[in-house]
Amino acid sequence: MAEKVQIVFQPSGRRGEIEKGKSILEAARALGVGIEAACGGARVCGKCRVIVETGRFEKLNLSSSADHVSPVGDVERKFLTAKELARGYRLACNAFLTGDLVVTVPEESRSAKQVILEKGRERDIAIHPAVKNITVTLPAASLSDFRDDRQRLLETLEKETGLKNLSIDYPVLKELPQILRAENWTVTATIWQDTEVIRVAPGERRTSLGVAVDIGTTTLAAFLCDLVTGAVLAKASRMNPQIGFGEDVLARISYAASEPEGREKLQAAVIGALNELTAEMTEKAGFAPSDVDEMVLVYNTAMHHLALGLDPRYVGRSPFAPAASAPLDVKARDLGIAINPAGNIHSLPVEAGFVGADNMAVLLAEEPYNGDKIKLIIDIGTNGEIDLGNRDRLLSTSCATGPALEGAQIAFGMRAAPGAIERVKIDPVSYEPRYKVIGQEEWHPLPYDWHPSVQKIAAQGICGSGVIDAIAALHEAGVISDAGRLNAKLGTPRVRRGETGKLEYVLAWAKETAIGKDIVITQADIRAVQLAKAALYVGAEFLMEKYGVDHVDEVILAGAFGSYIDKESAMAIGMFPGCDPAQVKAVGNAAGDGARIALLNVEKRREAAEVARRVEFVETAVEPDFQKKFMDAIAVTSHRIATSSAPA
Amino acid sequence: MAEKVQIVFQPSGRRGEIEKGKSILEAARALGVGIEAACGGARVCGKCRVIVETGRFEKLNLSSSADHVSPVGDVERKFLTAKELARGYRLACNAFLTGDLVVTVPEESRSAKQVILEKGRERDIAIHPAVKNITVTLPAASLSDFRDDRQRLLETLEKETGLKNLSIDYPVLKELPQILRAENWTVTATIWQDTEVIRVAPGERRTSLGVAVDIGTTTLAAFLCDLVTGAVLAKASRMNPQIGFGEDVLARISYAASEPEGREKLQAAVIGALNELTAEMTEKAGFAPSDVDEMVLVYNTAMHHLALGLDPRYVGRSPFAPAASAPLDVKARDLGIAINPAGNIHSLPVEAGFVGADNMAVLLAEEPYNGDKIKLIIDIGTNGEIDLGNRDRLLSTSCATGPALEGAQIAFGMRAAPGAIERVKIDPVSYEPRYKVIGQEEWHPLPYDWHPSVQKIAAQGICGSGVIDAIAALHEAGVISDAGRLNAKLGTPRVRRGETGKLEYVLAWAKETAIGKDIVITQADIRAVQLAKAALYVGAEFLMEKYGVDHVDEVILAGAFGSYIDKESAMAIGMFPGCDPAQVKAVGNAAGDGARIALLNVEKRREAAEVARRVEFVETAVEPDFQKKFMDAIAVTSHRIATSSAPA
Repeated sequence: MAEKVQIVFQPSGRRGEIEKGKSILEAARALGVGIEAACGGARVCGKCRVIVETGRFEKLNLSSSADHVSPVGDVERKFLTAKELARGYRLACNAFLTGDLVVTVPEESRSAKQVILEKGRERDIAIHPAVKNITVTLPAASLSDFRDDRQRLLETLEKETGLKNLSIDYPVLKELPQILRAENWTVTATIWQDTEVIRVAPGERRTSLGVAVDIGTTTLAAFLCDLVTGAVLAKASRMNPQIGFGEDVLARISYAASEPEGREKLQAAVIGALNELTAEMTEKAGFAPSDVDEMVLVYNTAMHHLALGLDPRYVGRSPFAPAASAPLDVKARDLGIAINPAGNIHSLPVEAGFVGADNMAVLLAEEPYNGDKIKLIIDIGTNGEIDLGNRDRLLSTSCATGPALEGAQIAFGMRAAPGAIERVKIDPVSYEPRYKVIGQEEWHPLPYDWHPSVQKIAAQGICGSGVIDAIAALHEAGVISDAGRLNAKLGTPRVRRGETGKLEYVLAWAKETAIGKDIVITQADIRAVQLAKAALYVGAEFLMEKYGVDHVDEVILAGAFGSYIDKESAMAIGMFPGCDPAQVKAVGNAAGDGARIALLNVEKRREAAEVARRVEFVETAVEPDFQKKFMDAIAVTSHRIATSSAPA
Repeated sequence: MAEKVQIVFQPSGRRGEIEKGKSILEAARALGVGIEAACGGARVCGKCRVIVETGRFEKLNLSSSADHVSPVGDVERKFLTAKELARGYRLACNAFLTGDLVVTVPEESRSAKQVILEKGRERDIAIHPAVKNITVTLPAASLSDFRDDRQRLLETLEKETGLKNLSIDYPVLKELPQILRAENWTVTATIWQDTEVIRVAPGERRTSLGVAVDIGTTTLAAFLCDLVTGAVLAKASRMNPQIGFGEDVLARISYAASEPEGREKLQAAVIGALNELTAEMTEKAGFAPSDVDEMVLVYNTAMHHLALGLDPRYVGRSPFAPAASAPLDVKARDLGIAINPAGNIHSLPVEAGFVGADNMAVLLAEEPYNGDKIKLIIDIGTNGEIDLGNRDRLLSTSCATGPALEGAQIAFGMRAAPGAIERVKIDPVSYEPRYKVIGQEEWHPLPYDWHPSVQKIAAQGICGSGVIDAIAALHEAGVISDAGRLNAKLGTPRVRRGETGKLEYVLAWAKETAIGKDIVITQADIRAVQLAKAALYVGAEFLMEKYGVDHVDEVILAGAFGSYIDKESAMAIGMFPGCDPAQVKAVGNAAGDGARIALLNVEKRREAAEVARRVEFVETAVEPDFQKKFMDAIAVTSHRIATSSAPA
């Protein structure tokens, strides 16, 4: 067995024994410590900055030293300044354990708990769940009626419900004898899809629970529902722990394909989170996880493969064929999901390429296929998905938006967590900014007479909506051009050349931040947002062209991010076709709503399977004029379309 | 965590760390050391005798002492003599670890490897297996055909085979993408029951393997079969490791119901043995266990429940309702059976009470329901099962034979292993015995001029067929009466009063045995065999009465034991209705043959399910004159019936 060392992470205090030779990043993953690693440990992003502490830590009974880790490498010299190296800064991915260690994870490197939008629209959902409880009383076993327990139950159920050819799932059989006799042969059978008995409980059982989860690339949002009333009994959310293996889907696919047991690790991470979410919600509502009889999952195609453990390699390369796209029901026990082991985990169908079950859920929630209005639905996430159409025809596409809109791959980007700059205004004369951070109502700079006893939340970074707001404001104030270039000739110290010689705009001076550094927006950040918004814009443009329309009746922004951003700012930079803001509607986590709808109504699953077959998938990247359209869309300017239903 | 001690078992040398406070028997089970425990650790049989060694064992780096184990208890004083206690003898069930220990398991206490009859009759079996390989070439995925891999495979299979609505089992989906592309889209799909794809392999795959196992109370007999040719590629057998938890089914049911995790331990024991058998056979035949696509199991009802992990409590008490009696298919992964995880484990149907799937297998092998001859089929094991009938009507019953006929619960009983006395003759004048032990052709006493270089196998005990032979011979010589009583007035030292004052017959003097003790047949042994044979006899008698016949056309002895016993001796003591020995046929392990038939021919499974519904189960214990008939049958005497088909 390999030799092990002790490692303690500060400030969380997580501690464990790790094999010598492992990196600090691997140790953090093993101990569940969230460290940002945008590149998934590929040693190219420089985000996983940690501080190796030195000295004898009496309370921890541990001596830590810079000698207890491998020497500083070239990669680290590239991303860390001499001063930082002197302070003990290392990249967690590139520092390998040789002895006991105390490591501090600075605020900037932590995977923070994101503010996740859970509230969708209130929707009327017809209740027709896949699982139902039926209470029956069986004739008692006797010497003149020595039928076996299984047959006795099935024959009684058939008599009561008319359901023929019911089967009983294996784990249910194991405890059947005692359960039948516990309440004098009265039992409640839980029947799935009118075909299979997935639970038998003594006496009368009213509990009927299901869980719906939207598994985003970045965020998991879960709902515990009463399958009889449809009520949401509890909600919970957390970061997708796969983030530790790579921020975007391609990094994770690559990790799954190239690391030993990479696929298993990614699957275990998300299954673990599903189990935690379920435990948290059932505890809140006064139940046990094993009381849950079904789970519905929606996700994009990559998350679908990684959660189900399907080989994801070919999803990431042309012709982008998924392993499976049909609706799937997999036994909870086969996935290691700790609900009723006989319960099923239902996946909505995957459409094509990266347009996944989450988009099917959005369609179920918005039902563009049931109306006459032409709707443009933009689900903004790390992977953008766009639908366009009505009852006559429905098109959809996906866009490689990248994580910039969620604050990742941005110099001072961070998730939408307290301390993140989320709104920005720029004075068009002085070019001085004002900004608002999450967690504080007042705008910065705060008043001079700010009472010291009132909490003052200093900025730690910029979240996605803050970046968009900042770019829109900088553009409006003339600090950046239509082409997206910063103007160095304005005579303000806010626009300067950074360490690498590239232009940047200082949004917050070091003294006013929580991280002791100037928070800047770099030319590269602006470029990343331009690329992301161009991808979304071109996706919408292509769908409209294919559909043959130059106007839409409604623009629907789905996804938590869609609810945070300022519609006008987004339109001002040309993130989606500009139109009357009154026709733009943010609907929150429509994918989560669609997952709940599928959980509560089995007919809707059939509807989803049908719609999945009907939706026309448009692969924009193979269109001949994609490149030209994309370059045109990069300009920071509004691209206006009509939203009235009047002919153009 | 509980403190642990080192324990080493001699002569096997098995060593391990065991928690303090555990009994030596528990330690033996944990380390896989076979110690006889007829009562399943209930401290009533006194069989689990072991010797605690004393001293410093340098090679083992261990000091062992009588102080390293709990003090001798009353139970031990009852079963062990003062001399034995002084030598270090303990009962493994009653001696609890307090320190490091070296324990010797004497020959008499070891669960020996039994001589198991594997050869059945050669039978013609039509080949129509449940799993089939289909090789297909799929159209390659392209941008103009981006169907998902699952759909692409299913549509190609449907086109080639006409099979609609095929499903793909979840574990198969996981690796599908790479497998489809490995040999340029040519793959072999393994399809189960024309409904489910349970394996997809790159290119052409010819291998198609199945395993059939007869899980007896005492013995497991397994066959690895080629599902295309029907050939038996390998055979293997071993003791049912559940024996460590109790020799008979009632002891095991009681262990399962009353010990913490008792059911799980019993299931794990037999599943572990199935995995070992499969590994042994596939290795012999040049394959891997994961190459096996299906397994068929047959067993009595208690073994069925204990192998599948079903609550067995109500099988053991009136009205003896099994948890499930229908044919079952359970996924290998759900049972922890290490074949293809998507493969199925098929159980033949259980009939009723203790008449299990093994009896269905015997019926499949003998097919009494397809002919005019009235057959009496006696499957002799720890649980006896009897069938009577022909195409018009078929009756069956079970008899609590007990383990006496297999040499258990007999003072010097042992399994049919080398050293066991298997044949006995008694001189009617001198009352001196001659006997034959398994492993030696010559009868004892061996000639005076026996060459010292030729191996001489000394007796260690008596196996079941030896006991029956001895009782028949003692009865014929007048040493025991019709009522089964030993005659103390014959003037031979062979008949004497034993330690407890009860009569016994000395079959072998200590000096000629391998165990250094006189090997005797006690009055209690004779009584146990009388009870066992009466149970069998009465079962057959009841069936004939119910059927309304006083003769049968053929008597078939099934089971390994049925092949070992001397037909005449068995009839002489009245074990089954006496008849013309020419009409008595031993067919070996018919249950194992039936399991192979079901493995190779799916039509035969349907036949079994039909026959299971048609067979009339007779519960003899509830018949009003059961007690009287049973008492009549206890006499040691032949009960003759006609076997000719002439009317009586």
